[in-house]
Amino acid sequence: MRILIIGGGGMVGQKLAHNLALSGTLGNRKIAELTLADAFAAQTLSSTANFPIKTVVADITNPVIAQSLITNKPDVIFHLAAVVSGEAEANFEKGYSVNVEGIKNILEAIRLTGNGYMPRLVFTSSVAVYGGPYPEIIHDDFHLQPRTSYGTQKAISELLVNDYSRRGFVDGVSLRLPTICVRPGKPNKAASGFFSNILREPLVGIEAILPASKSATNYFASPRSAVGFLVHAANLDTSVLGDNRAMMMPGVWGTVGDEIDALRRVAGDEIVALIKDEPDPVIEKMLSNWNFPDITSARARALGFKAENTLDEIIQVHIDDELDGKIPGRSK
Amino acid sequence: MRILIIGGGGMVGQKLAHNLALSGTLGNRKIAELTLADAFAAQTLSSTANFPIKTVVADITNPVIAQSLITNKPDVIFHLAAVVSGEAEANFEKGYSVNVEGIKNILEAIRLTGNGYMPRLVFTSSVAVYGGPYPEIIHDDFHLQPRTSYGTQKAISELLVNDYSRRGFVDGVSLRLPTICVRPGKPNKAASGFFSNILREPLVGIEAILPASKSATNYFASPRSAVGFLVHAANLDTSVLGDNRAMMMPGVWGTVGDEIDALRRVAGDEIVALIKDEPDPVIEKMLSNWNFPDITSARARALGFKAENTLDEIIQVHIDDELDGKIPGRSK
Repeated sequence: MRILIIGGGGMVGQKLAHNLALSGTLGNRKIAELTLADAFAAQTLSSTANFPIKTVVADITNPVIAQSLITNKPDVIFHLAAVVSGEAEANFEKGYSVNVEGIKNILEAIRLTGNGYMPRLVFTSSVAVYGGPYPEIIHDDFHLQPRTSYGTQKAISELLVNDYSRRGFVDGVSLRLPTICVRPGKPNKAASGFFSNILREPLVGIEAILPASKSATNYFASPRSAVGFLVHAANLDTSVLGDNRAMMMPGVWGTVGDEIDALRRVAGDEIVALIKDEPDPVIEKMLSNWNFPDITSARARALGFKAENTLDEIIQVHIDDELDGKIPGRSK
Repeated sequence: MRILIIGGGGMVGQKLAHNLALSGTLGNRKIAELTLADAFAAQTLSSTANFPIKTVVADITNPVIAQSLITNKPDVIFHLAAVVSGEAEANFEKGYSVNVEGIKNILEAIRLTGNGYMPRLVFTSSVAVYGGPYPEIIHDDFHLQPRTSYGTQKAISELLVNDYSRRGFVDGVSLRLPTICVRPGKPNKAASGFFSNILREPLVGIEAILPASKSATNYFASPRSAVGFLVHAANLDTSVLGDNRAMMMPGVWGTVGDEIDALRRVAGDEIVALIKDEPDPVIEKMLSNWNFPDITSARARALGFKAENTLDEIIQVHIDDELDGKIPGRSK
């Protein structure tokens, strides 16, 4: 089978590619070829694989280039490419261009291929499709009421994936990802970046700024869980989904205070002391619009999607996957 | 003030224009000019008005033409233009082009005008944004889960109107219209057309085909109510809406059987006898996906939007507004 990862240069795309390279299969099918497409040159994968891995620089906002990615009819397409929340809010035109026109171009390229071509498309949506006022707990039938341009663009994309799937042009699944935490590497432009920063940086002995209140809430899953969601979605029996192909993925609800408590349990007071309060009114305002209550993710859990159960586990996954099981920030 | 009606040649657009021509004002403001734009030449309004009424043929799927409609900065824009449900299902590309690209072009033309231009935009969405499985009753926070391309396109448009309003580019309100009934004139391509046909045609002595089961449900409001919603929305204090500018308009829930019972009460057995059962599997299948439970429309009702309370009233409004208070189908 041929696999295409659009956004293959990003953090989740790279981890997914690494996972596929190691396993050599997706579900029960042997991988014949993997293509990593991104707007910038994706770094060459360090993993060795027993199938060819191509990297392609492709601007999906151009319909002709989007179509070129579909020419060899990949069996499974992971669409992870996105302008993240902070950037989509700062650059209105770029957000709509990449996050709406980009996926529309891919969907159109698939539809126009025709001749029975109907690949599995796994699209990463986001918890940002929700917005307040919230009920006490968010069920799967809570309405799409985004409070950011990013959330709006993800909600629109979900609707497109549903309609193209209902019409038989594609076999789509949209995964509403929790906030991915702990995000490794450097901060990106996501407004939610600090939720990772306050864990990641202290663990390696670097001070981290907390720009929001300790009562700010979020819904978290690890990068390892994100890859697990994608692989599970690629193998899912979509006939049970009906016409609504979008699902909120499971995660762990918690406040910033809960994150700090978990960090203390896993890594100790010395590490926690590296978090510095420095309130930022812009971040505070954004958070006031998406201070989530808990989310059931009942549909996805029933379909076998799995995430961590505690913030402690989420921190431990980061230590295991990124820090070789150690906490370098500790003085001894 | 200047008013623009996009879709001014359609049934609701013409009735709205007639209403504005008669009143001469919108809210407390005197109307200086009314423009009726449509993809085809709108019929000249029979009403006399004490302000100029222009008709313009304009294809809003062309961004340059869309922009030309905004050049004189209308204060209030009614966006009613749409490819209806049956046609949007039959012609996938045309549906997305008119129902998504069309409004996107208008929103972009408004945004790019800039210089503080922020008109009131009243957009007609539809009850078709909902889809099953349904709860026992649809509340305002039930999710957008359309089961038609038309419903998908309306849901996407609502999300755009919300985001452009949140960003301060436009002052939008999206009205989810019930099925408009009794629709006067000839049948259009809306899949829900028969809900009107079985009332309208018998009242004038013509047989009507009932292609669906008597248990099929819908949520109805009269054309007179639709015009009332639009005028009320143009004058609404949008500061109370927050970031969600979309609302389900009030209506009357009922089955086809309820419609027939109401017709019997208002017009008698002789009229009802003109309805002929002729099940159509395509219509039946479509209805199985949007057989609505009752809808609260609580938010809109609280904001003063008003519709009929019974199907009898809805039929009487048709007799009064379209048939001069008479029932021509009666033998005497």
